[in-house]
Amino acid sequence: MSIIKITLPDGSDKEFPKGSNPLDVAKSISEGLARNVISAKFNDTVIETVTPLTENGTLVLYTWNDKEGKKAFWHSTSHIVAQAIEELYPGAKLTIGPAIENGFYYDVDFGEHTISDKDFPKIEHRAIEIARGKHDFKMRPVSKSEALSLYKEQSNEYKVELIENLEDGSITFCDHDTFTDLCRGGHIPNTGIVKAIKILSVAGAYWRGDENKPQLTRVYGISFPKQKELTEYLELLEEAKKRDHRKLGKELELFTFSQKVGQGLPLWLPKGAALRERLEQFLKKAQKKAGYEMVVTPHIGQKELYVTSGHYEKYGADSFQPIHTPKEDEEFLLKPMNCPHHCEIYKTRPFSYRELPKRYAEFGTVYRYEQSGELHGLTRVRGFTQDDAHIFCTPDQVDQEFKNVIDLSLYVLKSLGFENFTAQVSVRDPHTPEKYIGSVDNWEKAENAIINAAKEKGLDFVIEEGEAAFYGPKLDFMVKDALGRPWQLGTIQVDYTLPERFDLTYKGSDNELHRPIMIHRAPFGSMERFIALLLEHTGGNFPLWLIPEQAIILPVSEKHEKYAEKVLKSLENNEIRALIDDRNETVGKKIREAEMNKIPFMLIVGENEEESNTISVRKHGGDDLGSIIVEGFVDLVAKEISSTLKSFKINV
Amino acid sequence: MSIIKITLPDGSDKEFPKGSNPLDVAKSISEGLARNVISAKFNDTVIETVTPLTENGTLVLYTWNDKEGKKAFWHSTSHIVAQAIEELYPGAKLTIGPAIENGFYYDVDFGEHTISDKDFPKIEHRAIEIARGKHDFKMRPVSKSEALSLYKEQSNEYKVELIENLEDGSITFCDHDTFTDLCRGGHIPNTGIVKAIKILSVAGAYWRGDENKPQLTRVYGISFPKQKELTEYLELLEEAKKRDHRKLGKELELFTFSQKVGQGLPLWLPKGAALRERLEQFLKKAQKKAGYEMVVTPHIGQKELYVTSGHYEKYGADSFQPIHTPKEDEEFLLKPMNCPHHCEIYKTRPFSYRELPKRYAEFGTVYRYEQSGELHGLTRVRGFTQDDAHIFCTPDQVDQEFKNVIDLSLYVLKSLGFENFTAQVSVRDPHTPEKYIGSVDNWEKAENAIINAAKEKGLDFVIEEGEAAFYGPKLDFMVKDALGRPWQLGTIQVDYTLPERFDLTYKGSDNELHRPIMIHRAPFGSMERFIALLLEHTGGNFPLWLIPEQAIILPVSEKHEKYAEKVLKSLENNEIRALIDDRNETVGKKIREAEMNKIPFMLIVGENEEESNTISVRKHGGDDLGSIIVEGFVDLVAKEISSTLKSFKINV
Repeated sequence: MSIIKITLPDGSDKEFPKGSNPLDVAKSISEGLARNVISAKFNDTVIETVTPLTENGTLVLYTWNDKEGKKAFWHSTSHIVAQAIEELYPGAKLTIGPAIENGFYYDVDFGEHTISDKDFPKIEHRAIEIARGKHDFKMRPVSKSEALSLYKEQSNEYKVELIENLEDGSITFCDHDTFTDLCRGGHIPNTGIVKAIKILSVAGAYWRGDENKPQLTRVYGISFPKQKELTEYLELLEEAKKRDHRKLGKELELFTFSQKVGQGLPLWLPKGAALRERLEQFLKKAQKKAGYEMVVTPHIGQKELYVTSGHYEKYGADSFQPIHTPKEDEEFLLKPMNCPHHCEIYKTRPFSYRELPKRYAEFGTVYRYEQSGELHGLTRVRGFTQDDAHIFCTPDQVDQEFKNVIDLSLYVLKSLGFENFTAQVSVRDPHTPEKYIGSVDNWEKAENAIINAAKEKGLDFVIEEGEAAFYGPKLDFMVKDALGRPWQLGTIQVDYTLPERFDLTYKGSDNELHRPIMIHRAPFGSMERFIALLLEHTGGNFPLWLIPEQAIILPVSEKHEKYAEKVLKSLENNEIRALIDDRNETVGKKIREAEMNKIPFMLIVGENEEESNTISVRKHGGDDLGSIIVEGFVDLVAKEISSTLKSFKINV
Repeated sequence: MSIIKITLPDGSDKEFPKGSNPLDVAKSISEGLARNVISAKFNDTVIETVTPLTENGTLVLYTWNDKEGKKAFWHSTSHIVAQAIEELYPGAKLTIGPAIENGFYYDVDFGEHTISDKDFPKIEHRAIEIARGKHDFKMRPVSKSEALSLYKEQSNEYKVELIENLEDGSITFCDHDTFTDLCRGGHIPNTGIVKAIKILSVAGAYWRGDENKPQLTRVYGISFPKQKELTEYLELLEEAKKRDHRKLGKELELFTFSQKVGQGLPLWLPKGAALRERLEQFLKKAQKKAGYEMVVTPHIGQKELYVTSGHYEKYGADSFQPIHTPKEDEEFLLKPMNCPHHCEIYKTRPFSYRELPKRYAEFGTVYRYEQSGELHGLTRVRGFTQDDAHIFCTPDQVDQEFKNVIDLSLYVLKSLGFENFTAQVSVRDPHTPEKYIGSVDNWEKAENAIINAAKEKGLDFVIEEGEAAFYGPKLDFMVKDALGRPWQLGTIQVDYTLPERFDLTYKGSDNELHRPIMIHRAPFGSMERFIALLLEHTGGNFPLWLIPEQAIILPVSEKHEKYAEKVLKSLENNEIRALIDDRNETVGKKIREAEMNKIPFMLIVGENEEESNTISVRKHGGDDLGSIIVEGFVDLVAKEISSTLKSFKINV
């Protein structure tokens, strides 16, 4: 019996009889692992846990906790669901059914049947029945003619088309229970591992994504190895729906989209525009302290500008196409970033090393083409405003400047209630130095500066080799929203290329001209994505300093409207944003609506309050703070704001 | 002897013997007029004062005070200067020499001669000598062959080319003294009226404006009937040069242009951006009081948006051309105005009459194509930011809203030191009702509302019939700069069209849907043009509340820098914008530079000041305010600001 050598992910080698399978390997490590292994990868090919290994190679074992494990799990579930559909809807034709990021789908031609959410329980019920049968998933090779004849018999022109495009000898079927499907493999051992199945939705989908081809029904589903995990997932989904920034943005009247203006181009409604303005003023104030200077640049630039910067070569073909002038032979582009404009501002006059760093900041709106299918609320748009700045400094200043930017970013995140964030430092791949520009010396300086800064500032960070941009290393802040989903927000990047391409210089203490180094940074990232994330993070309950309406005054009856006006006036004089709900409705109804509108304080004014010159304060969520005088309420608001809005100090 | 009937501009008719000339007509009115008449127009054709009138017709007489009079005066001077050039530069070939807005030019092929400003006195001297000869300008018809032979003899291929394109029988020469020129007419009676001639500049100009043709020298000049007028004009020119906003903008580091970014696209440098921000915040504050809500919209919109608004049909061909997407069949346009976007915001939800007016404001940057030759500093650009707002109101509200906008505009103008402005109300031409859209009733209401508002607010205004836009009447504020040149700044326009085109509605008290009326308004007009005008108006000495740097601290020596820092800190704590000039230079030099940089206050700190804890205050322009404590200076600044920055109250 011959022996093969299996290399495991930790680098260790183990010998096994030829023909052993991943399950055998798992058993040799631990019984626990063997119980949990549901999929495997051998020499970069996904295989079954029972696939015999016939040569030396590298093996990775997957459990449910691995992304690849989930993929096999969900892919296998799609077979089970397909079987249920085939049984429940005779004549339905199956096409393809892959795993996706969360679950799986199966595209089905249901023929005369129509499927709605009313049908889901029936499908789920039958699918889980099949699963409980603990049927093994068994792969077998078939000849092309055999494969074709099966599906021709079933009149399934979709599978026939798929098979016709495959090479004879490479075709495999997967069987379980009474069901057979054309399949390349990647299954869990048996159906019994699937304990919970949920059909989530149905949608239309063209065969092969081609709108000239028949429309199929895409059945989305998800499954879990424990019923409890499904329950949790559905709760999370429910919560995510409630916190969807698109839903909240509409309810809170923050922004809208217009078909006429164009998809992916948000229109900011008054409350949203005011929110943006407050965020901008907040950052402007901190930036002023940190020695930044604001600039304003146009939203277009000549093509030549982006040829110089290198953006045209890299992104030109996938961008909004050039704007021509009617009478002269000129070409402009919508600006995809602000850096080339800021380089041109730096070039306005010569600088001495004594004048550096120069820190040019701009809330610069940029436009980047995204396919319409990729657009999503405010997180994936075609036009967005970066809280951009470019720092031009000497190599010796990179270290301190980087630390200052971290301080500023932390100040921003903490003032907005993000306590749960990590950082990713992206450095060169040391094996491919040819991919990067700039001297090794400068790269080392910059990478060390970033890593030291991250350490010194106590950031929770990981270093990713090979993730640096070709022009320099960077640090990104990864923020988790309230549902634990990670997002990339603020970024700090060191750049050696643009100063070179734009021939930027400063006069050093040696009286010679030197190249400055550029730091790109954006603590919010983009106003649009930041506000989207803030909405989903807070569920619309923004920090008090930021929220559009801080308080609503609710007169008990018409008689008290005058007094309500008086209260409003004194709140306004104290810069508290408030409004009066003077509709002819009960206080109960007004409170319910104010709760829905996420207004932090409800100020009820009636007979007693007017007489004692007070207001009855109720907090969002229900806390009753009792009757207090207006000045007391002003103090209360000021205190709550100062407890979230940190004070900002920085070394300049 | 036959009689002709001459109709004068006042509508009166007078009879004259056939063959009388404009001078005879002038004499019949008054000797004074006859002395001053220098040109005339008969039945829409410009003629000489000695041209015989042979038929009935309408006659206008011109003096130096008329635009047409000046044109004849300057055109005639170009003949005199041409004679001088011909005599002084033998072989120079004359081409064409028209009057322009201020003076005249003559394009000359100087052959081997080169001309610079050193040659100007010589030319001026000979020209004024010729003028003093009081030679009559005499027109005579010539045959084409005669005309050609004269210029062929002189080897002047330019005049030959001109004549070849003329029809035989229509060609005239003008003689004076020994000089003859090909000319259609329009001269003053004789050279003696010209008392002062100045050659202003020379520039290159292609023959017939075609860069493939020979380059000529364009000699610019101006002339006056009195020496004193020339002196005054040259002083004005000198002053205008000093106040040119392009020069001041550069000196004060407010803005710049970049060849790479593109012409007509200003880049705002830190001091300029800060100035803009202050102007914006100033207006935002007033607008908030006046019930406006800020919105933010993208800088592009689908072509469809502008087809709906009507802009595409009207301006599409002359605009920046559509932006295509790389993968989908979409077309966007750079937005030339903000109104269509604001209409789409209004359409986000239904409105009741009780919720109107809605006032959406945005500092919206728009892009409009201008030919490169038309561009001029910040006054004629390709991208600019409007302080735009659109008020959506019921017909009954137009009156009050219009008055409120006038109040806001007056507040803006007065806070910025413009005391000298007029208004122009543009209404329909009552004879061409078909040119306007909207009901006669609404137009009357709106025109009356504007006129009454202008009267009620005590504006100095004129009504211009036929100047209204097709969509509604308007009121423009015309502001004179310090040199008395008029500029159009703020505008208020009533619009019936866009609500129609965008199908905007509100629910009236009758529970039916009605069309709102839109008011477009922009008190600054555009940030770019307003700042340009403000620069030229103030010569860079901005109002104290607006100026980038309010004070500069000048330590007498290095010893006092610490104290200077302390002073700076307390100024900053009091929100006074100040900086320290700690260069190793004399205080005298520092003062001179601060004067040049238009800094209102220079605060000198030395031994005495440090000991007494004071600062020595010197005002821009030289006033010495003596030594005062910092708090005293803070009060002084606050008082000066409150005296210019009016407080703003409005009826909402």
